[in-house]
Amino acid sequence: MAYPENFSGIAIVDNKDYTHPKKVDFKPKVFGDHDIDLKVECCGVCGSDHHKACGAWGETVKPTVLGHEIIGTVVKLGPKCNSGLKIGDRVGVGAQAFACLECDRCKSDNEQYCRKCVWAIDSAYADGYRSKGGFGNYVRLHEHFAVPIPEGLDSATIAPLLCGGVTVYSPLLRNGCGPGKKVGIMGIGGIGHMGILLAKAMGAEVYAISRSNAKKEDSFKLGADHYIATKEESDWTTKYEDTLDLVVICSGSLTDIDLNILPKTMKIGGKIVSIAIPEASEKLEMSPFGLLGVSIANSNIGSVKEIKLLLQLAKDKNIKPWVEEVPLGEDSLGEVFARMDKGDVRYRFTMVDYDKVF
Amino acid sequence: MAYPENFSGIAIVDNKDYTHPKKVDFKPKVFGDHDIDLKVECCGVCGSDHHKACGAWGETVKPTVLGHEIIGTVVKLGPKCNSGLKIGDRVGVGAQAFACLECDRCKSDNEQYCRKCVWAIDSAYADGYRSKGGFGNYVRLHEHFAVPIPEGLDSATIAPLLCGGVTVYSPLLRNGCGPGKKVGIMGIGGIGHMGILLAKAMGAEVYAISRSNAKKEDSFKLGADHYIATKEESDWTTKYEDTLDLVVICSGSLTDIDLNILPKTMKIGGKIVSIAIPEASEKLEMSPFGLLGVSIANSNIGSVKEIKLLLQLAKDKNIKPWVEEVPLGEDSLGEVFARMDKGDVRYRFTMVDYDKVF
Repeated sequence: MAYPENFSGIAIVDNKDYTHPKKVDFKPKVFGDHDIDLKVECCGVCGSDHHKACGAWGETVKPTVLGHEIIGTVVKLGPKCNSGLKIGDRVGVGAQAFACLECDRCKSDNEQYCRKCVWAIDSAYADGYRSKGGFGNYVRLHEHFAVPIPEGLDSATIAPLLCGGVTVYSPLLRNGCGPGKKVGIMGIGGIGHMGILLAKAMGAEVYAISRSNAKKEDSFKLGADHYIATKEESDWTTKYEDTLDLVVICSGSLTDIDLNILPKTMKIGGKIVSIAIPEASEKLEMSPFGLLGVSIANSNIGSVKEIKLLLQLAKDKNIKPWVEEVPLGEDSLGEVFARMDKGDVRYRFTMVDYDKVF
Repeated sequence: MAYPENFSGIAIVDNKDYTHPKKVDFKPKVFGDHDIDLKVECCGVCGSDHHKACGAWGETVKPTVLGHEIIGTVVKLGPKCNSGLKIGDRVGVGAQAFACLECDRCKSDNEQYCRKCVWAIDSAYADGYRSKGGFGNYVRLHEHFAVPIPEGLDSATIAPLLCGGVTVYSPLLRNGCGPGKKVGIMGIGGIGHMGILLAKAMGAEVYAISRSNAKKEDSFKLGADHYIATKEESDWTTKYEDTLDLVVICSGSLTDIDLNILPKTMKIGGKIVSIAIPEASEKLEMSPFGLLGVSIANSNIGSVKEIKLLLQLAKDKNIKPWVEEVPLGEDSLGEVFARMDKGDVRYRFTMVDYDKVF
């Protein structure tokens, strides 16, 4: 029994054997009044898909259909949908599938901090159903979280903006990234490479900050104005003392970052924002003196409004994340996860060619 | 040999016996081109005077003339003074006596973060001379750090604004305290009581946050709109969830504050600013998840510009810190430190009657 009763996906069936996902059929969630169904065109692969796949955040509920940088076409609208979407619209969905839309957080464009938030992958709805993502033929979710894609943008190229991109865009936007500002992007991986593209497009002077020089050439190609290799320049905090207005930490973990020395590179009033979602046991630890005049914060993805602003920025400034397109399949998705284990990605995968597998 | 060759002060001569200061004569610093001399009228007693006196931050250089909430009259101007001060002007001096005034920090009203900063007490000038404060008959310092006191303000009453007051005023001002904002003042002591007065005068809705209910009545008298006793309301983070825009931590130490739960009371984008200067060994430690959407920072006193703004606010809004006036003397200053040991102060001492001791 196929759509609309059943959806299909390439799913993790065993977190220990996450490089061997399997094609499965599954029942979608109960269709709500404000839900929509999308026929998926392509879907980016985010670091948190990999974290979920390998069980770094704990065992997932099986089958686990991952993928939360989804681009698809609206094929069904719930009876009370009123956000303006129409059948046939090309839309994008990021890491979030539901929020109450009634609380102060939702009403202030902070849906991602709503206490009733349901993430797009392996996250529990009120009735216990676990959300399923974009490595499947269809996805079902609340209309609010589907954002129209401006014409002219290439789906596979801009899919990674929907989660990874907005995760670095939100702290850049909320903390004044723009002309006249010196902005550090620390950790040049999937999200960090988009951080360089975005900070540059927003008009800032961009400092790419990485451990080694391995990402130097790429960083300049992406638009960085400066490059700091922290493990190869022992005096970097002196050399760049009192320089930066904002640093967004895009590393997956904070344990490698010495928060007692990073603030030295910041101007008074400077802001350090981490977008890392580290292991739950990880602690931020620093001397209060190290933070004199500087603030540190943690930021979580971005709002729907910010996804909209970001897609418009991508169109206006011709922003193109560096994407390797991979046809979706059991083997190919498994290999993608295996390559992510090794850091073998420059800088983002998008799964494509859905018509061939479903 | 008295002024101008020698000054006199009531000085700490032994950090172990800090409740028995002695009257001493001492040579002032070399008179610089931009220096001024003030005849001291009165001087507030700040928590950091007590910390210095008892050696909590290490042995001090003796004799240690403390006091850095100084009000006095200009009696001598250096040959290149050009800030507009005149002989006879009543001026106030806070915690800082010198900065380069040429670096980016100085030029952006952040003199307190200048790397050549000399504090007003027991701090080394370039030539090694240790600064001496306001528990003496005269003080000598750079003209930039002497701020004219608006007419109509009572010296002894507003002296504590010069260090303690501006220390809480600066983070309030820099982080948007004002009408429509919900602002927490955590730790209701010398600085915290001024925090309530100031946040209220700035138009915010004020939440006084203390461990017990001991400061409840006073907090409401000072102008607080709400009072939270964290050790007596086990559900306070739930009750006040998602409430505060800004919290200024005015406690002397951070170790008693659970930074994993305080952010729960903050709105998304909320700011926690600590003004504590804790023991050097103390660490800020928290789970990054605890900071989701909230920032934490440390702030150090305030700028000269902020002292000026604060004094004008004090005049415009009739702000009166709760001050106990104590005639300066060996015994009385010793007793003041002994009472501070016990927390026996509501909420600030100002040493007065200088004419009787010098």
